[in-house]
Amino acid sequence: MSTFSELVQARRSANNFVEGIKIPQSELEEMFSLARLAPSAYNLQHTHYKVVSDEDLKEKIREAAYGQYKIHTASAVIVVLGDKNAYLQASEIYSGLKMLGAMSEDAFDQTIADIHNAYAGKDAFQHDEAIRNASLSAMQFMLIAKDKGWDTCPMIGFDAQAVKAALNLSDNMVPVMLITIGKDNKHKIRPRGYRKPVNEFVEFF
Amino acid sequence: MSTFSELVQARRSANNFVEGIKIPQSELEEMFSLARLAPSAYNLQHTHYKVVSDEDLKEKIREAAYGQYKIHTASAVIVVLGDKNAYLQASEIYSGLKMLGAMSEDAFDQTIADIHNAYAGKDAFQHDEAIRNASLSAMQFMLIAKDKGWDTCPMIGFDAQAVKAALNLSDNMVPVMLITIGKDNKHKIRPRGYRKPVNEFVEFF
Repeated sequence: MSTFSELVQARRSANNFVEGIKIPQSELEEMFSLARLAPSAYNLQHTHYKVVSDEDLKEKIREAAYGQYKIHTASAVIVVLGDKNAYLQASEIYSGLKMLGAMSEDAFDQTIADIHNAYAGKDAFQHDEAIRNASLSAMQFMLIAKDKGWDTCPMIGFDAQAVKAALNLSDNMVPVMLITIGKDNKHKIRPRGYRKPVNEFVEFF
Repeated sequence: MSTFSELVQARRSANNFVEGIKIPQSELEEMFSLARLAPSAYNLQHTHYKVVSDEDLKEKIREAAYGQYKIHTASAVIVVLGDKNAYLQASEIYSGLKMLGAMSEDAFDQTIADIHNAYAGKDAFQHDEAIRNASLSAMQFMLIAKDKGWDTCPMIGFDAQAVKAALNLSDNMVPVMLITIGKDNKHKIRPRGYRKPVNEFVEFF
């Protein structure tokens, strides 16, 4: 247990995982159960995760990621996806609030109409939303993992088409990033990369 | 002080802010100083933040966000940007590691070349990267803010061109989201939106 500020400082992108460590599915389920509390636009929960621990499939993902060695040594590689069709589930997501009486019939209809107007037929926006919301979720997931003693590394170097083929994904699923997860090899830790001072990336008005 | 899991559960997208609360710049600087530890592809730190507390400019951002009232009552609205040109700063970011001897001249040259190959001339990838990396940073920022007692709400309902005009932003800057920040009006809190069970968005292989 640590303060949140210690946790943020302790989370580092892992470069070398200790080989042969299994990550229990129950622990992952616990992490995802917290990760799903991350915000998403209209609460549409665009994010899907494919957790690959199976060695054969993991090697296929590794090939799609240009052979990057850390996928081989990681306990699992997690494919983070954003669903361009998430808006089609709007009624399903909001019907509970309506049934509980926490949302009126009119407010429900208006929300569903707003969501439809925002997304339907807007391919570029659907794509951006897939990336945006999956990235919010992924960041929360990586902090949760660190809090539970697991190291992660987000990766964007992969062939999206090859990842989609390996997992047989439908076209609405955008591969947003890969996350390798496992136990960092503490003997090989490098200094943290340079970070810009606050005044170089924040401006106050 | 709370455990991280309590923090994740306590963070909610705020809908009603208490009006008239100022947020000290020093506190924001402290938050951003932690937020910058979020990961980014190649450590390029694509994310920029424009923190708008000035009432006139805040109203302009509100207009660009279709008049959404919570921007009016929030202590500040933060415009989260992703820089499509972040890769042009690669040498600057990696030169420190080279000077410290933590990175060889060859490794430095290779890294700069890899980054150039990944981004140069690739407009769609630059755009996706702007959204992806700014969203990772934004999620970490919102958790940091909550840990320090501030409530936030990420917003994607705005006219990107109008936001760019209000802040005089160059074309390489992608408005990724707005974050309102302030103190949530506890009397108006709604039930948390429905979240899908883990088995509906996670699959194990």
